[in-house]
Amino acid sequence: MATTGKQLFTTLEADGTLTVAVEEVSFPDPTGTQVLVKMEAAPINPTDLAILVGGADLENASFSEGKFVASVPEPYNTGSKARHGMKLPAGTEGAGTVVAAGNGDAAQALAGQRVACVPGNAFSQYCIADASACLPLGDHSAEEGASAFVNPMTALGFVENAKIDGQDAILHTVGASNLGQMLTRICKEDGIGLVNIVRRDSQAELLGGLGATHVVNSSKDDFMSRLVSAIDDTGAFYGFDPIGGGKSVDTAFRAMEQVAVSRMTDYSRYGSNQPKRMFIYGRLDTGQTILSPSYGFGWTLSGWLLFPFLQSAGGETVGRMRKRVLDNLTTTFASHYKQSVNLEEMLTREAVTDYREMKTGEKYLVTPWS
Amino acid sequence: MATTGKQLFTTLEADGTLTVAVEEVSFPDPTGTQVLVKMEAAPINPTDLAILVGGADLENASFSEGKFVASVPEPYNTGSKARHGMKLPAGTEGAGTVVAAGNGDAAQALAGQRVACVPGNAFSQYCIADASACLPLGDHSAEEGASAFVNPMTALGFVENAKIDGQDAILHTVGASNLGQMLTRICKEDGIGLVNIVRRDSQAELLGGLGATHVVNSSKDDFMSRLVSAIDDTGAFYGFDPIGGGKSVDTAFRAMEQVAVSRMTDYSRYGSNQPKRMFIYGRLDTGQTILSPSYGFGWTLSGWLLFPFLQSAGGETVGRMRKRVLDNLTTTFASHYKQSVNLEEMLTREAVTDYREMKTGEKYLVTPWS
Repeated sequence: MATTGKQLFTTLEADGTLTVAVEEVSFPDPTGTQVLVKMEAAPINPTDLAILVGGADLENASFSEGKFVASVPEPYNTGSKARHGMKLPAGTEGAGTVVAAGNGDAAQALAGQRVACVPGNAFSQYCIADASACLPLGDHSAEEGASAFVNPMTALGFVENAKIDGQDAILHTVGASNLGQMLTRICKEDGIGLVNIVRRDSQAELLGGLGATHVVNSSKDDFMSRLVSAIDDTGAFYGFDPIGGGKSVDTAFRAMEQVAVSRMTDYSRYGSNQPKRMFIYGRLDTGQTILSPSYGFGWTLSGWLLFPFLQSAGGETVGRMRKRVLDNLTTTFASHYKQSVNLEEMLTREAVTDYREMKTGEKYLVTPWS
Repeated sequence: MATTGKQLFTTLEADGTLTVAVEEVSFPDPTGTQVLVKMEAAPINPTDLAILVGGADLENASFSEGKFVASVPEPYNTGSKARHGMKLPAGTEGAGTVVAAGNGDAAQALAGQRVACVPGNAFSQYCIADASACLPLGDHSAEEGASAFVNPMTALGFVENAKIDGQDAILHTVGASNLGQMLTRICKEDGIGLVNIVRRDSQAELLGGLGATHVVNSSKDDFMSRLVSAIDDTGAFYGFDPIGGGKSVDTAFRAMEQVAVSRMTDYSRYGSNQPKRMFIYGRLDTGQTILSPSYGFGWTLSGWLLFPFLQSAGGETVGRMRKRVLDNLTTTFASHYKQSVNLEEMLTREAVTDYREMKTGEKYLVTPWS
């Protein structure tokens, strides 16, 4: 007897028409190591927004109950041509209760438990997930466990990656984000230096309250000199950037190079030999990345994604990271939400327009049964 | 008794005044492992041009015998502020005869021999060099040995670096350059796949004559589809770019991603997991590097310089590379020159204006005693 329930789908046609709608679908019975999770809470992460709204023209979109239809202008539409005509689920992660389990031991062990999971269709009343990827939440609420994966594992992943690369300090270009706050707490716990860039005094105060020692406000006139000084203090020639477009990475490289050059005794036309490393892990700005020719050749810029990193880090490291998240779910890794919406409410003009702005500290939580 | 001779110096003042002039100087006697080389030939490499002419306004420059004075406009002048007020030598490499040697065995062993060397002041009648960095040229002429280091070791370095990274194919964005021709011959000898990008049919023919199998002309309408097809054929997700500014790297990444996506069975909003790697090893275009957000997160871009690479590769590898260069100096690693000039002739308006254009196949050779 198949389980039925509501699920969100997003479809982009070749002509640029984007349809995002809630549909009633049936979910298969779990087999083997699979479990069927009745989803209770799922965060809308920046990573989910690309296929939910992308570059859609919301002003001229039409909204109805549990559905909106919008036009995706160029160059976004052509940039998404690989998904043209596909009906895609959405929602990276969430938490809920296991209501059915396959015959495998790992699945059976989770029967009836509340778990966090990463199904890829978390904006749904039910999800199929593999037991090995579920994190049992014990007595934690679904809201507490909904964001147990993406942000905590990413922030921990930065620190793990830095340690693997022999670094003891990190630069983060959006310090006050939910993830940035977690990173601040982790770095403090682990004794890792951290340079946080923020845009407002209130964000600097927030991070100061979490124990951050080097917070630099990019809206101030003395931003560059303070950034240089913070990098000099911490030795943070290694950083992470969720903005992607524009000069965010370039600014970090320029400041790192200024520190490196100030430590050189001889002039070199090639710049310093100090390795400078930045990772782009998000696309808050979907514009072009601009790199100026002003920091020599001793730099490396990469894209960074959580899943490939976890794969390369290996099972033992990932297990240790997951345990740390669970042990500190309501402290180091606590997430906060501006608002809860059900599947229909998340598709209103007001909600979509609000959460696509990705304002710092204004995350939405989807509660499919509310 | 000190040796005296002519040497070129370049000085940039804080106000942007660039003075490049030949002066009569005295050279110290070599000590220990040093040798004094009477320089007979030195190439003007692109890497030398930055401190020789940089962004100087040649049109309004004043030229006199063995000297020119030009103004360096912004942003180049500020970008070079680390050298303001410094009187710098120039000339990365060259060849000549050892006319004096220190007491060390390595130095004494080179006495009277013709060697290639990398002194950093090769635009000079004499240079002090360390014996360990000299390559004895045997019966080769100074012209044959003048470019025995930078281009050969760089081209070999690309192949070594690719092998270290487990790659069996390379993309090169300026295929027909002197270095690109060497790379073409090396890849053919070593069975490494190579995708060459050129701008003209004549360059494609030239490389075809060297045995190149995948040459793509960027001035043709079907450039992108041919580039994609060449990458698909060779598996070249790994490339080197001497241009730096503009979209040269971006184009390579986009083409690599098109190949990777065409091999995927499922759509991913994050792009392919195929690692894509590019290195910028020069700045033929000193403008900004533009990266578009159209190849996911599975990419890495780095600066690449020969000396740090050789340092990381280790002595054994470098020794093997040097032997290969010497054994094939007039074949695989042959360089050709458009013109020979002495130190005064290289500072005429006509010469400076010509070699700063860095036209493919139009390299200058400085012969300080001619």
